Amino acid sequence: MRQRLYKLGELADVVGGVVDGDGATVISGVAGIREAKAGDITFLSNPRYEEFVHTTHASAIIAARGGIKHAIPAILVDDPYLGFVKVLGLFAKQKEILYEKGVHRTALVDPDVEIGQDVSIGPYCQVNRGAKIGPNTRIFLGGYIGEDVTIGNDCLIYPNVTIREGCEIGHRVIIHPGAVVGSDGFGFARNGEVYQKIPQIGKVVIEDDVEIGANSTVDRGTTGVTRVCQGSKIDNLVQIAHNVVVGKNSVLAAQVGISGSVELGEGVVMAGQVGCVGHITIGNRVVAGAQSGITKSIPDDTTVSGYPAREHRIAKKLYGDTTRIPEMRKRIRELEKRIEELQKRMGDGKTTKDDQ
Amino acid sequence: MRQRLYKLGELADVVGGVVDGDGATVISGVAGIREAKAGDITFLSNPRYEEFVHTTHASAIIAARGGIKHAIPAILVDDPYLGFVKVLGLFAKQKEILYEKGVHRTALVDPDVEIGQDVSIGPYCQVNRGAKIGPNTRIFLGGYIGEDVTIGNDCLIYPNVTIREGCEIGHRVIIHPGAVVGSDGFGFARNGEVYQKIPQIGKVVIEDDVEIGANSTVDRGTTGVTRVCQGSKIDNLVQIAHNVVVGKNSVLAAQVGISGSVELGEGVVMAGQVGCVGHITIGNRVVAGAQSGITKSIPDDTTVSGYPAREHRIAKKLYGDTTRIPEMRKRIRELEKRIEELQKRMGDGKTTKDDQ
Amino acid sequence: MRQRLYKLGELADVVGGVVDGDGATVISGVAGIREAKAGDITFLSNPRYEEFVHTTHASAIIAARGGIKHAIPAILVDDPYLGFVKVLGLFAKQKEILYEKGVHRTALVDPDVEIGQDVSIGPYCQVNRGAKIGPNTRIFLGGYIGEDVTIGNDCLIYPNVTIREGCEIGHRVIIHPGAVVGSDGFGFARNGEVYQKIPQIGKVVIEDDVEIGANSTVDRGTTGVTRVCQGSKIDNLVQIAHNVVVGKNSVLAAQVGISGSVELGEGVVMAGQVGCVGHITIGNRVVAGAQSGITKSIPDDTTVSGYPAREHRIAKKLYGDTTRIPEMRKRIRELEKRIEELQKRMGDGKTTKDDQ
Repeated sequence: MRQRLYKLGELADVVGGVVDGDGATVISGVAGIREAKAGDITFLSNPRYEEFVHTTHASAIIAARGGIKHAIPAILVDDPYLGFVKVLGLFAKQKEILYEKGVHRTALVDPDVEIGQDVSIGPYCQVNRGAKIGPNTRIFLGGYIGEDVTIGNDCLIYPNVTIREGCEIGHRVIIHPGAVVGSDGFGFARNGEVYQKIPQIGKVVIEDDVEIGANSTVDRGTTGVTRVCQGSKIDNLVQIAHNVVVGKNSVLAAQVGISGSVELGEGVVMAGQVGCVGHITIGNRVVAGAQSGITKSIPDDTTVSGYPAREHRIAKKLYGDTTRIPEMRKRIRELEKRIEELQKRMGDGKTTKDDQ
Repeated sequence: MRQRLYKLGELADVVGGVVDGDGATVISGVAGIREAKAGDITFLSNPRYEEFVHTTHASAIIAARGGIKHAIPAILVDDPYLGFVKVLGLFAKQKEILYEKGVHRTALVDPDVEIGQDVSIGPYCQVNRGAKIGPNTRIFLGGYIGEDVTIGNDCLIYPNVTIREGCEIGHRVIIHPGAVVGSDGFGFARNGEVYQKIPQIGKVVIEDDVEIGANSTVDRGTTGVTRVCQGSKIDNLVQIAHNVVVGKNSVLAAQVGISGSVELGEGVVMAGQVGCVGHITIGNRVVAGAQSGITKSIPDDTTVSGYPAREHRIAKKLYGDTTRIPEMRKRIRELEKRIEELQKRMGDGKTTKDDQ
Repeated sequence: MRQRLYKLGELADVVGGVVDGDGATVISGVAGIREAKAGDITFLSNPRYEEFVHTTHASAIIAARGGIKHAIPAILVDDPYLGFVKVLGLFAKQKEILYEKGVHRTALVDPDVEIGQDVSIGPYCQVNRGAKIGPNTRIFLGGYIGEDVTIGNDCLIYPNVTIREGCEIGHRVIIHPGAVVGSDGFGFARNGEVYQKIPQIGKVVIEDDVEIGANSTVDRGTTGVTRVCQGSKIDNLVQIAHNVVVGKNSVLAAQVGISGSVELGEGVVMAGQVGCVGHITIGNRVVAGAQSGITKSIPDDTTVSGYPAREHRIAKKLYGDTTRIPEMRKRIRELEKRIEELQKRMGDGKTTKDDQ
């Protein structure tokens, strides 16, 4: 895996930027501003990292036009982060690992399975009857593909993934190691003290361009569908319960939990460890702060936080209010003293009056 | 997998209900009220979904006797949800996937293993020395069954499950994909700044009729047992630490975490993401609201919520109290003004007095 | 697996303690104070369990010099818990399961892999090109070891673990079942409404003597490294995001989530379900209470709790403050009444004054 070298000028062309400094500077890698070594190109986007501009060991930097001064050669662009992502893509391509296409001799693929061109099915996988695997999809070690599962083109199914029967996976979907798609929904009917299992006969639909994080779990619908819509990105250890809908282009960070039958709109963003009770609706473009506990439906374009989750500015004010309690208690004590004194004096006054 | 068709009258017999409308209506499937298509039977139980009664595409509905009007043929019952579950069971039976019994040629089963009748051990499993697998139990792809593990009758062990040495699994237990039973408890003795591993030589006992959710983890006892008692249902991504006891018929929703040596009573219900510190006792029939953080023992029949978890009605009141702070601050300001004014006027009085 | 028997006197020598009672008492096992049976030795360390001293079925106890009375033979030591751990180690040794060294015939090991002495690679593993496995390391069923991964000496890699390409694992590391090391960081560049994947070309470094819990996930750096430093212990279902550093000898309990680029110092302790926003620094020896939500950097030697996490004593006071609201409201009402009355009387006074 020998790394190709680039000149800074070449990279400027790739990102559509302007070189500031020596365009012949040789670049052999890409790295964050703190860990970059000689030969690396880095970037400055988050102002939090400005202080590192003068100490970085990088040989060049992607920076904003009109931004702060830098001592090393630079590529100036409008959005340094997007520039970084493009350069990263260039180096990632070189790091790509070659693998053999085809069905590994140890993979157990039912005769009644449709396999597209250039598919790679890794060792010790099981692909059951009725499944369809689209062209150029790769399934790693130990993947379980249940009966009648369909998987689209250009998917990556990392090691030790389980996709149970009847689930549908779109194109360009990435399912990270250990994730589970199509496990039973958590449904029980209480019968006195005993819980009786409710059969879970629905399925999961994962639309195009979705990612499901490592060890995340997406339960099948009780009946009908649990759906993760196009372009949504789900981080590690996330729980998606039965009959949930995650709208298009939504982002759920690690350890988020969505209870049964919740509907998330499009462009929803949930930070880490957010939880959501069942049977509610989360509007389009709702943003939920880390650890929010959402207990009721949220309208479009709302940012919420806290438990129970409220509009962020209200939650913040509420929190600020509680920090004022000591001051309030002091003022109450003060008032009590003052009124005590007044009453005493009024008592005098009274006496005086009585004396009159 | 051809679906059998039913007449509404037949289904009414199955659920013990009364047909209201055309008993000859043909039913080919079962679905929730919003996603039902022509041919489906649906149900109405949660009043939240009443509005959909008039727009559902279902061909029939299971509804409560004396409930709201519906335009489609119905089966009237006392408990529509239980009726739905029965019909669901009927259709689920038809969807059941046939599989081969016996030990797959690639499964590695130690000669010193007892295998009951009609067991199915899937491909690429490993069943180690001293294990016993009860009749009619099915183990899917890649299951690891450690030394001396016992598994009862009629269990389902889904793909990629790990059960470590010495653990005991009862009858009719379902372990969902990726779950881990018998991993080391998290025990370390601090020795200056270094943590020294405490050997974990106990085991896990999972009693009859338990479900363990996808990617959940149940640690073995340090010594002795971590026990999940009969009939308890554990959702996905739940953590059960060493030496915990989960009492009978308890329900732990997704992402709940129970710390070491906690004892849960019978019939406990914990909503999603609840956490519980170690070495405490949770009484029978305790209910914990989503995201509760339980920091001390809870008596029987208590509903708790919040962090630190308190009796729900107190937690709710506490929360309500904080929302009153702005009003309280206003009243304090008001009082200050009024007393200011009184003091000014009393100052007059004082002057007057001094004048005397 | 026949258990060797010990005399109490022998065990006293092992733990460096003094026998109080019959040193010839025969000990066949070790157990917690509540579950101990005849033949077992137990211990008393946590005062919470003192009440069980008189009811335990253990045949002997490890207790503190000068501690409470006990009716059974004892070993008196300075630190009963450390004594227990030593005895536990003795019995654990006997319980160790013998296994075959070498590469299982079904393990797929690339010719270009370096394997140390006494390595055990279990069935259905895949060890890819360029990997190095150090002496005496054991990999269980279904392990995926990516290209160029290095694993040190004396490691345990439990079943169904995935370690992706390029990651580095130190010596004496234990990775529990289902854990994932080196999954993609969760990085996307927003492009209008669409999220574009940022290639994740970094790696994970797990240093010596680390444990990674069951089904935990450690993402690779976007560029550079995600690092878990020497001696740190990570429990089950923990999420470590891209480019995080977990300092030496830190302890993260179950279901903790650390967001991208966070740096934890040495000796940090996080209780269960703690969450941490991205790009912050957690000082050395910081302790975070269960479910804390850490939203900003924390200086060394600080104990925090709550959401947003604050110094524990402040968080506790804040919480205490809120419980005083009802009393404050009562006092405000009281003040309002008193001032009302004063104003009335002053009104009289006023009249009087006016009368003057």
